[in-house]
Amino acid sequence: MRRSKAFIPTTKEAPSDAVLASHIFLSRAGFISQVASGLYSYMPLAKKVIRKIENVIHEEMANVGAQEVELSFVAPSDLWIESGRIDKFGKELLRFYDRKEKLFVLGPTHEEMMVDLVRNRITSYKNLPLNLYQIKTKFRDEVRPRFGLMRGREFIMKDGYSFHASVEDLDREFNALEDAYKRIIKRLGLDFRVVEADSGAIGGTGSKELMVLADSGEDTIAVCDKCEYGANIEVFMDMEELGEDFDASSVSDIKELKGDDNCPHCDGKLSLTKGIEVGHIFKLGTTYSKALKAEFLDEEGKSKPFIMGTYGMGVSRLVAAVIEQHHDENGCIWTKETAPYTINIMISNVKDEAQNTLGEELYLKLLGENIEVMIDDRKDRFGFKMKDAELIGFPFTVIIGKELENGIVQIFNRATREKISVPSGEIYKKIMELI
Amino acid sequence: MRRSKAFIPTTKEAPSDAVLASHIFLSRAGFISQVASGLYSYMPLAKKVIRKIENVIHEEMANVGAQEVELSFVAPSDLWIESGRIDKFGKELLRFYDRKEKLFVLGPTHEEMMVDLVRNRITSYKNLPLNLYQIKTKFRDEVRPRFGLMRGREFIMKDGYSFHASVEDLDREFNALEDAYKRIIKRLGLDFRVVEADSGAIGGTGSKELMVLADSGEDTIAVCDKCEYGANIEVFMDMEELGEDFDASSVSDIKELKGDDNCPHCDGKLSLTKGIEVGHIFKLGTTYSKALKAEFLDEEGKSKPFIMGTYGMGVSRLVAAVIEQHHDENGCIWTKETAPYTINIMISNVKDEAQNTLGEELYLKLLGENIEVMIDDRKDRFGFKMKDAELIGFPFTVIIGKELENGIVQIFNRATREKISVPSGEIYKKIMELI
Repeated sequence: MRRSKAFIPTTKEAPSDAVLASHIFLSRAGFISQVASGLYSYMPLAKKVIRKIENVIHEEMANVGAQEVELSFVAPSDLWIESGRIDKFGKELLRFYDRKEKLFVLGPTHEEMMVDLVRNRITSYKNLPLNLYQIKTKFRDEVRPRFGLMRGREFIMKDGYSFHASVEDLDREFNALEDAYKRIIKRLGLDFRVVEADSGAIGGTGSKELMVLADSGEDTIAVCDKCEYGANIEVFMDMEELGEDFDASSVSDIKELKGDDNCPHCDGKLSLTKGIEVGHIFKLGTTYSKALKAEFLDEEGKSKPFIMGTYGMGVSRLVAAVIEQHHDENGCIWTKETAPYTINIMISNVKDEAQNTLGEELYLKLLGENIEVMIDDRKDRFGFKMKDAELIGFPFTVIIGKELENGIVQIFNRATREKISVPSGEIYKKIMELI
Repeated sequence: MRRSKAFIPTTKEAPSDAVLASHIFLSRAGFISQVASGLYSYMPLAKKVIRKIENVIHEEMANVGAQEVELSFVAPSDLWIESGRIDKFGKELLRFYDRKEKLFVLGPTHEEMMVDLVRNRITSYKNLPLNLYQIKTKFRDEVRPRFGLMRGREFIMKDGYSFHASVEDLDREFNALEDAYKRIIKRLGLDFRVVEADSGAIGGTGSKELMVLADSGEDTIAVCDKCEYGANIEVFMDMEELGEDFDASSVSDIKELKGDDNCPHCDGKLSLTKGIEVGHIFKLGTTYSKALKAEFLDEEGKSKPFIMGTYGMGVSRLVAAVIEQHHDENGCIWTKETAPYTINIMISNVKDEAQNTLGEELYLKLLGENIEVMIDDRKDRFGFKMKDAELIGFPFTVIIGKELENGIVQIFNRATREKISVPSGEIYKKIMELI
């Protein structure tokens, strides 16, 4: 992409209510645009990041045999009445009447819709297990939308649901999905912990959250310094967030955890850290299948409700989480796997023919190799363009400047802010080594 | 994909209100599931078709330099008040209040949102032209949703908007987009006509529709038997559909066209045929930019409203249009470019070891070549499985049956319903020739 043609409206102004780095820098660097409280539009750079995250999710979902569907966003309220959640969800569930005075909701999550899709279509244990997922816009009318993409009202979520004939099979799938989720977050280049999430989970495995570690995280988690153990100590907040019943027994668990720093799994010590919840996997059991009478015939011909799991991942929240974990005072620092463009070719002075020629040659060569490359061909000053590049956060910027007279170009590493000098003839080879 | 694991709930039952082939077969073959009037969920096969269509659109949009964005689905009513469309759009525009009693709408189209995104961000002629697009769910509260995906309330649309400093530049972009739209529909394997759409357009170029030719089409179009000329004679219906002002002058144009069968561009004769509108490109001019005060500075430093074009394409409608143009009494006939799977390997008798071995070998080999392949490994009877394959509409089914004893397998061509016999050792080579 040519920077001169790209719609990347960078600005010095941050939104007045922005306190988080991701909110500030995604706005300033021209990734997102606020439409109303908790509503954002994604500009081309954000759309590219989202697409990259989605592709990783699609690949890992295919690996575990999950099949992609897309459920309607506007959902009939009947299903929510059937499940009993229409009241439990409260005002976060946005409701409205259509022109024929029928009540609908905007899907904040899709358990009911997915159960409805499968019931009467899968009727035998022979066609189980089944794992369906979608990546789709969701809406929750949050009372206090905040932190940019971190807690918006409209957001992009990957939600998946599995259907099983036995608890053992759900356990197997749950573990497979936990592994898949770990692979996704790892591939995106993020430091994370899988933490046990609800009361039963302290020592159990029924509900786990994927936490991207960042000081700005809303969740406080206890992590062991020896083993992989981690637990969310703000279970009650999550419960509220997920619209599930609050389990009073969890309170004592939290207290226990707070008062005791011994790991329950090994002889390590627990310490507290902050995390951003980007994924939540949960063994639903038969809650929804019973409520919605979604049943199959087992091997003995007996009718039984599906045993279900649910697997959510916040796609738009992940965009913010990358920046919360990877930024400095100059702007975004995208990981290689999430960067909208891996390489930025900076022509310092576009009036210089040699600089232009080398820049254009390199640009076309990288394009030909399907490398995501931007060329900054604008007439603006070098200093301005470099600040812009740092704000956007390209992993590598190739600086073609005055040193070219001596046959030298530079590669600026956004994460380390180091510049290395490379003979211009070796620049392509060097780039291929780096990426 | 293994058919035994795939969520493809085929059925003999068609929805009671289904009259169109696409509605009947997409439902029966397990592509779509009705959620409520005009609301559908996409099951895995439909999702794959949609993805293929989207990929073609993305490629052709990149070719013309259009950049992808994603605007929020829930939109503040302010923008619609500003443009004056809140009243004009009528009840098709779904409105609701959020928990703070602010009025919002569900985006039925995104002119206002896109102008809002660009205004104050593009301020100079130097940064024009700009062409932004998205592929996004839309909602129109149709008074009479019908025909399955053809006229739903929630649907997937590609909508694009271009911004220019001059009318000449809009003309250039409009022509480029017309060409891109033609390439898209052609690549999908569809017969189509570009027709002139509104009053000014008879002899002009301000509004064009892409019509997929099909007997079931809602639009009647006049086409020339000699040149490429075509025109929609049901302009008033379209006007209504697009929520634009009805132009009384178009009525006389329609009458003229109906009474006269001479082509206005050559000495050919016009005849009437039916089409499904899958695309509409339109020169908006300054209608929205004036209403929303979206301006740029021209070369002389004077403030001017953007000159705009808009380019829509119905993605979910295209799924239905393929089937309207390509089906028979047995079911869907996907074109190669839209098929969810190009090749279906049919193991006639899964208990036969030789059949199984060859089927599995071929399956893995095709998978390795990134060919979209299904293997029907179910224990059901051959006749049942073949009917199922015809209903779904795989372009080619490789039948591995009894003839394998004589070293022969067959390839069933869904479109022609011909079977050709191929020595089993040559099957891979033959498939590669066909696809």
